[in-house]
Amino acid sequence: MKKVGIIMGSDSDLPVVEKAFGVLDELCVPYEVHVFSAHRTPVEVREFSLRAQERDFGVLIAAAGMAAHLAGAVAANTILPVIGIPVKGGTFDGLDALLSTVQMPSGIPVATVAVDGAKNAAFLAAEIIALSDKGLGERLLAYRKREADGVLRKNAAVEAKYNRA
Amino acid sequence: MKKVGIIMGSDSDLPVVEKAFGVLDELCVPYEVHVFSAHRTPVEVREFSLRAQERDFGVLIAAAGMAAHLAGAVAANTILPVIGIPVKGGTFDGLDALLSTVQMPSGIPVATVAVDGAKNAAFLAAEIIALSDKGLGERLLAYRKREADGVLRKNAAVEAKYNRA
Amino acid sequence: MKKVGIIMGSDSDLPVVEKAFGVLDELCVPYEVHVFSAHRTPVEVREFSLRAQERDFGVLIAAAGMAAHLAGAVAANTILPVIGIPVKGGTFDGLDALLSTVQMPSGIPVATVAVDGAKNAAFLAAEIIALSDKGLGERLLAYRKREADGVLRKNAAVEAKYNRA
Amino acid sequence: MKKVGIIMGSDSDLPVVEKAFGVLDELCVPYEVHVFSAHRTPVEVREFSLRAQERDFGVLIAAAGMAAHLAGAVAANTILPVIGIPVKGGTFDGLDALLSTVQMPSGIPVATVAVDGAKNAAFLAAEIIALSDKGLGERLLAYRKREADGVLRKNAAVEAKYNRA
Amino acid sequence: MKKVGIIMGSDSDLPVVEKAFGVLDELCVPYEVHVFSAHRTPVEVREFSLRAQERDFGVLIAAAGMAAHLAGAVAANTILPVIGIPVKGGTFDGLDALLSTVQMPSGIPVATVAVDGAKNAAFLAAEIIALSDKGLGERLLAYRKREADGVLRKNAAVEAKYNRA
Amino acid sequence: MKKVGIIMGSDSDLPVVEKAFGVLDELCVPYEVHVFSAHRTPVEVREFSLRAQERDFGVLIAAAGMAAHLAGAVAANTILPVIGIPVKGGTFDGLDALLSTVQMPSGIPVATVAVDGAKNAAFLAAEIIALSDKGLGERLLAYRKREADGVLRKNAAVEAKYNRA
Amino acid sequence: MKKVGIIMGSDSDLPVVEKAFGVLDELCVPYEVHVFSAHRTPVEVREFSLRAQERDFGVLIAAAGMAAHLAGAVAANTILPVIGIPVKGGTFDGLDALLSTVQMPSGIPVATVAVDGAKNAAFLAAEIIALSDKGLGERLLAYRKREADGVLRKNAAVEAKYNRA
Amino acid sequence: MKKVGIIMGSDSDLPVVEKAFGVLDELCVPYEVHVFSAHRTPVEVREFSLRAQERDFGVLIAAAGMAAHLAGAVAANTILPVIGIPVKGGTFDGLDALLSTVQMPSGIPVATVAVDGAKNAAFLAAEIIALSDKGLGERLLAYRKREADGVLRKNAAVEAKYNRA
Repeated sequence: MKKVGIIMGSDSDLPVVEKAFGVLDELCVPYEVHVFSAHRTPVEVREFSLRAQERDFGVLIAAAGMAAHLAGAVAANTILPVIGIPVKGGTFDGLDALLSTVQMPSGIPVATVAVDGAKNAAFLAAEIIALSDKGLGERLLAYRKREADGVLRKNAAVEAKYNRA
Repeated sequence: MKKVGIIMGSDSDLPVVEKAFGVLDELCVPYEVHVFSAHRTPVEVREFSLRAQERDFGVLIAAAGMAAHLAGAVAANTILPVIGIPVKGGTFDGLDALLSTVQMPSGIPVATVAVDGAKNAAFLAAEIIALSDKGLGERLLAYRKREADGVLRKNAAVEAKYNRA
Repeated sequence: MKKVGIIMGSDSDLPVVEKAFGVLDELCVPYEVHVFSAHRTPVEVREFSLRAQERDFGVLIAAAGMAAHLAGAVAANTILPVIGIPVKGGTFDGLDALLSTVQMPSGIPVATVAVDGAKNAAFLAAEIIALSDKGLGERLLAYRKREADGVLRKNAAVEAKYNRA
Repeated sequence: MKKVGIIMGSDSDLPVVEKAFGVLDELCVPYEVHVFSAHRTPVEVREFSLRAQERDFGVLIAAAGMAAHLAGAVAANTILPVIGIPVKGGTFDGLDALLSTVQMPSGIPVATVAVDGAKNAAFLAAEIIALSDKGLGERLLAYRKREADGVLRKNAAVEAKYNRA
Repeated sequence: MKKVGIIMGSDSDLPVVEKAFGVLDELCVPYEVHVFSAHRTPVEVREFSLRAQERDFGVLIAAAGMAAHLAGAVAANTILPVIGIPVKGGTFDGLDALLSTVQMPSGIPVATVAVDGAKNAAFLAAEIIALSDKGLGERLLAYRKREADGVLRKNAAVEAKYNRA
Repeated sequence: MKKVGIIMGSDSDLPVVEKAFGVLDELCVPYEVHVFSAHRTPVEVREFSLRAQERDFGVLIAAAGMAAHLAGAVAANTILPVIGIPVKGGTFDGLDALLSTVQMPSGIPVATVAVDGAKNAAFLAAEIIALSDKGLGERLLAYRKREADGVLRKNAAVEAKYNRA
Repeated sequence: MKKVGIIMGSDSDLPVVEKAFGVLDELCVPYEVHVFSAHRTPVEVREFSLRAQERDFGVLIAAAGMAAHLAGAVAANTILPVIGIPVKGGTFDGLDALLSTVQMPSGIPVATVAVDGAKNAAFLAAEIIALSDKGLGERLLAYRKREADGVLRKNAAVEAKYNRA
Repeated sequence: MKKVGIIMGSDSDLPVVEKAFGVLDELCVPYEVHVFSAHRTPVEVREFSLRAQERDFGVLIAAAGMAAHLAGAVAANTILPVIGIPVKGGTFDGLDALLSTVQMPSGIPVATVAVDGAKNAAFLAAEIIALSDKGLGERLLAYRKREADGVLRKNAAVEAKYNRA
């Protein structure tokens, strides 16, 4: 199975990003994690991105806040699908990071998920890799089934407690 | 090669969405186009999404404006990667569609591109399919090369005309 | 009297939504509460909405945050009036949920109340049901009278304490 | 059948509001139209609202732009359901009118529809009146059916023209 | 000297509004304080506003949050200058209250100050009343002088502590 | 009668600002108009403001766009009431000018009206001057009466044309 | 005199950027113009930035729209002062470009000017270069003087035409 | 070496601004700190700005919140480069201060950094002064090197702890 590369712009993004690790662990998707900054270590970002395809990555995930250029800087150097996680920083509730991540120019897409949406970045990466891995697809379906069952259990609890009809 | 399914919420989205067709044509990626509304034809959206995997789609693209629920409604019914194009409507410069598309809850990701970013939806779909199609990967690289060459030609023209140093 | 159906997208919305229960209790309006997610349990949302009219609901209330598709997904499957409560989540102060709830396309309206406005969702539901229930109308008027009296009592207290004229 | 009262804050709102008339005409719902300003003619707004219930209105619709107080001023004087249409004016894409209409304090709800969403205000009014008028309910269902058929016809046209799979 | 009338929409606005009292006390401007809600007690708002001029008020201040209609409702019923204080509530950082207060239609102005800007509402009221009260003008100038002196004292402290030149 | 001083930051603001002239002409309020820029001619702004009170101005109006500092720069140099008109420029629909005008620090208020709200700036100025000019107060009341009559005439026209009840 | 390097992300930015050329021409500041895209030609952006100091540039100006990473990508590779011009594109009035340009992480500053503020980018560049070029400083002062004189001429024209005092 | 002048609008901005001191200390750049308010002490702001060039300042930094006019008021009185730090105050997450600082009119630029971006204001100032001070340039490069090394150390730690490939 191809592996997922996860880059965060700063280790202060770790509390957000690590939610992706649990999802990938549960789905048995291998991953590699890095801290590289688009602005402080542009060389490392570029070299990692350029070599990602030959190093057998299938999807790259980049998480950054503020003027979140990281996902775009990665995408500029690879044709692997790149998923961007806008991280909410000190101001603007992450709107700065969302717009900096999603409003990419034509030809260099970034697959953007919700602000602080690290779990969905992991699910999206898994969906992409599952295209050529039937077992992973089945694990994704099972995960969704468990999630749905969880909602229905909560529904039963809420029905029991609150209905007045 | 797996094909791309493209759904728009209204045929008024066609001027935006059709920019994706040209990209896919140029990259020789097969696609199927539909007009289904998450709110006016929820049954068709659901049935199309549920059967997409068995019908040999590899990626689905959904384009919608305003309270843009279409991509989410598709994603709720498939584990194929779903790409969302927020379409700028009459108000809010597409911010309503962007937030309605990107802010998905955990477990059901939508890979969101820029407002009116149909071309990038097509590129992203191609990048995903190229993971298991080497020829498509080469065509993507060639496309990027042509784009870069185009920028450099424009640079040469601008240099020639404007430099005062 | 017709009853009110209340659906929340997640039980994490309960602290917001339960403010509606008190209002309906006080106005003696029967209600039924559910946790159904537009994205995680789309089948249950659809089936509940499709059967709501025959099950003697008069109004449906749907509460959700982020890309708040729930009210729209309900409205797509019933001609009962649907009231949407945008729930403030982790980002954007609920602007994402507000726009996702209110900016519905033509033909499928959602009666949207304020962000976290669960009480007003309940009042609005009661106003609708009161159209064919005179006693409920009287209870609504009495409630408003009490609210106004409360304001005037506070006015008296503030006047007594602060006036310098 | 109870009738719908439609108030606009200025006759400059007419191009937006008149889209509601066509929907109500098609659904055979009687309506009465007024131009009353919350700020320039507060007495008329108040008197109309106070007497609306006894004059056999079932729902009131209020359309206004900018600091759109009209729907709130109406709702303050009646327990009839009040639907607010935020009208896009010269600035802020109608965000000012949307927030002024939807963010009502507890106890005085306004059922808000999309910016310039006059059609949906009419549909919502019809849904409310249809609770006690079976024929209107059937006309609403038929209308939705026609809308869905329209989408499917457009889908067929788009499929025929664009599919490349 | 004419007195200032201060109305707040809810006594929950008191922590914001009471900052105005101290300013008026210090400037020896008489004032009268009320809690009246534009939506819950529209009659009292109207009657207070209609009679304010004959009751010897010179300026009215209205403070409200969310869909902050109070200042506009007051202004609709008097030609006294009306100052609006948008109060930051639970959402949108007071942007809803600011737009609802400031975006008044032509003919009915509201003199809007900053979100939660109760002190400046008091200063503005005093500036208006000072037009016909020379002593108050002198107290205003003295106040400004004290404020400027305070800044310069802080400047001296900061200079002493931090300069590195 | 005291006169009104009107300053605009650029003569490109004239199409907005000149709407104030008509109101003041109709209300027989004398005024003086200037083009002074807070940034390009700070000396003139300061000198005009410092001398405004002794030159028998009663109110100052300042109109500016973008980083609209003009009203604040005027207010910093006078205790006359200063009214700010945020002018919509090329970007942000005037939100930049609105926030730059209204969010003044404590002690230096600017009475802000709507974006491009030059008419209301004039009405507000007139309301302030009318505090010591009974005739102007009567003209203001007459103006409001004419405005209300205009609304009622439009109401009659709309009633005649559109009612279907 | 050191020269100014101007890079735009696309030649579609030329109508905005070329306003900088006129300012630099008038101030006799030499400049060099390029079209390089942070995403389509990342190598050229990096190489130009890395060599800018040794090639005798004193300031770099970068103009880009949407997810405007260009100025940041330049700044990441040089310690020359980098000025960013956010360019208004098709959506969000340039807010996306503004936030993507200004919200840079600590250590890699971008001196951001107004949306589409190419003229001010040129003035700022000239102010920086003038620190070591007295003649340029005098030309800057003369320019400001001409601008101020222009305002005062317009003031005289407006005074003559409009004053009614 | 020319020194840096740092002005804050209020000593409440000190916790933000003092982060600039550490950077300048570390880079051995001399600086002078002041508290001057554009609105409360306009004379001091003007006099400081007018004399800054002759007093051997090379760059001025101005930090202010809300309607942040300070940087613009400084820039209006000097041709030295002026850097603006928008300070996040009680509302709007600093958007008011950002727009008030960056949206300057043509001819009077303010080099704006991120909201609360005091460190980058210091770096930018150092970059400007380094144009004529080779040693400072070397210290800036060394600083960047240390920052990059810090990122790489964190990367190593994260790699060691989290990789699952």
